[in-house]
Amino acid sequence: MTACETPVQVNLGSRSYYIHVAASFEELPNVLAPLVEGRRCAVVSNPTVWGLYGGAVSEAIVAAGGTPVAVLMPDGEEYKTLSVFERVMEDCVTAGLDRSSVILGLGGGVVGDMAGFAAASYMRGIGLVHLPTTLLAQVDSAIGGKTGVNLVSGKNLVGAFYQPRAVYINWKTLASLPEREMRAGFAEVIKYGMIADAALWELLEETTAPVMAAISAHAPLPEVVGEIIRRCCEIKAGVVAADECESGVRAILNYGHTFAHAIETLTRYRTYVHGEAVAIGMHAAATYAHALGLCSAELVARQRAVIEAAGLPTRLPRVNVDELMAAFARDKKARGGSLTFILPEAIGRVKVVHGCDESLLRSTLTALQA
Amino acid sequence: MTACETPVQVNLGSRSYYIHVAASFEELPNVLAPLVEGRRCAVVSNPTVWGLYGGAVSEAIVAAGGTPVAVLMPDGEEYKTLSVFERVMEDCVTAGLDRSSVILGLGGGVVGDMAGFAAASYMRGIGLVHLPTTLLAQVDSAIGGKTGVNLVSGKNLVGAFYQPRAVYINWKTLASLPEREMRAGFAEVIKYGMIADAALWELLEETTAPVMAAISAHAPLPEVVGEIIRRCCEIKAGVVAADECESGVRAILNYGHTFAHAIETLTRYRTYVHGEAVAIGMHAAATYAHALGLCSAELVARQRAVIEAAGLPTRLPRVNVDELMAAFARDKKARGGSLTFILPEAIGRVKVVHGCDESLLRSTLTALQA
Repeated sequence: MTACETPVQVNLGSRSYYIHVAASFEELPNVLAPLVEGRRCAVVSNPTVWGLYGGAVSEAIVAAGGTPVAVLMPDGEEYKTLSVFERVMEDCVTAGLDRSSVILGLGGGVVGDMAGFAAASYMRGIGLVHLPTTLLAQVDSAIGGKTGVNLVSGKNLVGAFYQPRAVYINWKTLASLPEREMRAGFAEVIKYGMIADAALWELLEETTAPVMAAISAHAPLPEVVGEIIRRCCEIKAGVVAADECESGVRAILNYGHTFAHAIETLTRYRTYVHGEAVAIGMHAAATYAHALGLCSAELVARQRAVIEAAGLPTRLPRVNVDELMAAFARDKKARGGSLTFILPEAIGRVKVVHGCDESLLRSTLTALQA
Repeated sequence: MTACETPVQVNLGSRSYYIHVAASFEELPNVLAPLVEGRRCAVVSNPTVWGLYGGAVSEAIVAAGGTPVAVLMPDGEEYKTLSVFERVMEDCVTAGLDRSSVILGLGGGVVGDMAGFAAASYMRGIGLVHLPTTLLAQVDSAIGGKTGVNLVSGKNLVGAFYQPRAVYINWKTLASLPEREMRAGFAEVIKYGMIADAALWELLEETTAPVMAAISAHAPLPEVVGEIIRRCCEIKAGVVAADECESGVRAILNYGHTFAHAIETLTRYRTYVHGEAVAIGMHAAATYAHALGLCSAELVARQRAVIEAAGLPTRLPRVNVDELMAAFARDKKARGGSLTFILPEAIGRVKVVHGCDESLLRSTLTALQA
């Protein structure tokens, strides 16, 4: 028994559920049995992930007494649309899903968001299990109940808060993840350390470089990866339990994200994957926090060192600072009125700051481009 | 002050809300003020209903301190689709709706289902107010939180349970309702009397004929209509509070509906509007219940008299009885395994019966076609 084998509880009263962090799919039948026995199970996935893990997951469903059916969607954020959603729903009807059926999301964030919204909406809500296979999904998107699809006019504008019945993370699936996605996922891991956990932070200072070296060398992932993921899940579970619908403390999970969203918008989502934009955003947030006198220069440097050890960028791209400020303002409007920055005070502790010191923010942004 | 002016509470803990039954839009600003002040309000409606009541509702929103925007969809069940839903969502973005905004559904069941699913899904859920303008919506679809759209392969297969913050019924809007829709709405009114309220039943025995006479003559609707609607809302509110997500007692609201769904399927939704199919279904249910020895012949006759006074059909169309039985079986499958009939035992009291006496059911159905 390792520490990874004790499940993490997400405490949401009658809708509480467990996150299982494991190094194989071996325990999946036991986790699924109470949820799928005698039921039809649609596994929402994409062809690549299904090719890798569809067999193991189907076998686990059968072993748990359920009937698996694959419902595949194309791979990529551009397919997280209402028309793909409609096809997924029609496929669920064709597959014979009824009110007692279960949808399992096997894949990364796109699959998880689609599977989640499908489960939330099919016959007004059926059971949902997440089987995340990317680092970003394992530490972030599969936990917390955010589901949804994009509109032409913006990302994640249509969706539901809908909690799974269980999350099962086989972190060994990360071995098949492209290196860039693995590094990008680390941005969120770094975020958890900075916002909530000095011990995790120290573990990351020690292990980020060797983990990345193993990834680059296509060597087996060190066991510490499972430990890191588990700790991230505990932090996210705690935050979600305290604020399910993102009206308060859950905002701290947006550390680095106000900057990241603006950068992604101005670079039209083409230059950076999300985690890279978050890495730049965290460095910008810490630098701004230091300029405001909220944190030490040492904190900024230590964070920068871990971000760089993960092979992630910290430098702000050459975008117009006026346009960045305008993107913040639009973000503020979309969030219902208040421009909010999550700023670090110490390793493991952040502060929610409403409004901004415009001239200091501008000079910080300008300096970060140098 | 009349009895109609005390709101009906739908008791759902922290999500409780009131149904206001009134004879004008006069009180709407007071009801809306705490919900819309300082907020952007998208009124989802269709061009016909918007033309009749859009002005009054917009004025009420302005008087309540909100900013109204119309989001119109075409009229008709065939437009309750995911592609119209997508257009409604995009229109909400264009209208500048944010997380603090409110969607108001002004219209009948189609508009209410669409507005409800839009509010449930826009940015993962924003405020919702129902302003139902048809009898069916006022006594049924606007209450209880069922929202959704159709798929090609079936009705209401995509949606959410999502509760409004308030329902405001100006029953005088029924004056603009086509006679056939008014009569069809009465099928659900009759249903409430039979399943739950002998006093309402007696009121219906007295007043159905004169109310229908007023409608046919385009005379002003008698005040008793407000009283009837209010009583139906109370019954539905009680059932919904006891069983929000339709796992138990809420099934009694399906009185007549197992038959109605089968009839609608076999006639491809072309011959009858929903209320007409429900009327035939209630007569079939009562006749079958009598054949089973569950209720008296007098009950069947009294129900038939009220249905006929409402100008609704009771005669089963000439469809193949084998096909009807097959449609029941499909309905059973779609509902997750059990064929259920809601059968009357006495005026105001029904019983949930699982399974069926096939030969008795067949002979009842055959006799009803004669």
